Amino acid sequence: MPLVRISLREGKSAEYRRAIADGIHRAMVETLAVPEQDRFQIITEHDANGLIYDPSYLGILRDDAIVLVQVTLSAGRKPPQKREFMARAAALLAQNPGLEPRNLVINLVEVAWENWSFGDGKAQYTE
Amino acid sequence: MPLVRISLREGKSAEYRRAIADGIHRAMVETLAVPEQDRFQIITEHDANGLIYDPSYLGILRDDAIVLVQVTLSAGRKPPQKREFMARAAALLAQNPGLEPRNLVINLVEVAWENWSFGDGKAQYTE
Amino acid sequence: MPLVRISLREGKSAEYRRAIADGIHRAMVETLAVPEQDRFQIITEHDANGLIYDPSYLGILRDDAIVLVQVTLSAGRKPPQKREFMARAAALLAQNPGLEPRNLVINLVEVAWENWSFGDGKAQYTE
Repeated sequence: MPLVRISLREGKSAEYRRAIADGIHRAMVETLAVPEQDRFQIITEHDANGLIYDPSYLGILRDDAIVLVQVTLSAGRKPPQKREFMARAAALLAQNPGLEPRNLVINLVEVAWENWSFGDGKAQYTE
Repeated sequence: MPLVRISLREGKSAEYRRAIADGIHRAMVETLAVPEQDRFQIITEHDANGLIYDPSYLGILRDDAIVLVQVTLSAGRKPPQKREFMARAAALLAQNPGLEPRNLVINLVEVAWENWSFGDGKAQYTE
Repeated sequence: MPLVRISLREGKSAEYRRAIADGIHRAMVETLAVPEQDRFQIITEHDANGLIYDPSYLGILRDDAIVLVQVTLSAGRKPPQKREFMARAAALLAQNPGLEPRNLVINLVEVAWENWSFGDGKAQYTE
């Protein structure tokens, strides 16, 4: 049920981008009770004009390796669980593909459980 | 007031993509009380590395014809109405352009009514 | 904390797009109490098939100079503040790069304060 949008600067290999996507999904499975198969992700690359970021907001130094992750998911996770997800995502991406945690920006958007259809024209979570 | 993001794999014709966009809008008009003219849609194509999906989550078989639709709309529709939208969208897209319902994934994001400006620097729904 | 997605038709210069992004950010700083450095924006260009809009919904005439802005931000702004943002954004973009207010469409998506990580695997707003 999460729909994940991952945005980064262009120039990374397909393997690198796949590792980012894999790590984000893994972190969701481990910390947010997301089913292993519940994976829908869109990864986009942008040039310097298409992805603007602040290089030091909150004292965290970011560079062109920045990865912006926006996760739309059903409501219900409590703040500690969200924090676990953020920490786990950063740790997994640091391992592979070697993304420095300072370059990982995450945003969660929460929606109602009935707001999803996974096919067949049905809202599976309400049936 | 809906802002609709439609994401699919590259390789479909402009006519095909237009038919997807038309069908989604038509379903919103018919089931969600969206005005005919209230249409704002962004359609993006992605290669295999840019759109990742699970091919069998919840037992529904998906393939590269998958279409991910994320609709941001004002809050207020009840679950039965949302289900009607999902069913109607699947039915219309099956008719034209012939998208199999198993390949249509939908997510709704709800926002407050005052969260829209349709131009002129005003929040038209609060005035 | 806002994550801003700006979508427009292709064919504008990088300077023009930058001015749009600058003006949206400036308006947020001035009206929504967004810190100057709190800037994360994704700007995408689309062809005529990729960005569909109604040319006269609510009696406002739009053309291919249309700019769709979707701002994800933390909840808490009251309607008058949101209206100030919309008005200020339209005024600033009219000054530079000369976007007519009729062509500026804005949508706000509100999320919880703990739904953000700005790096280092932490949810900075909850700590």
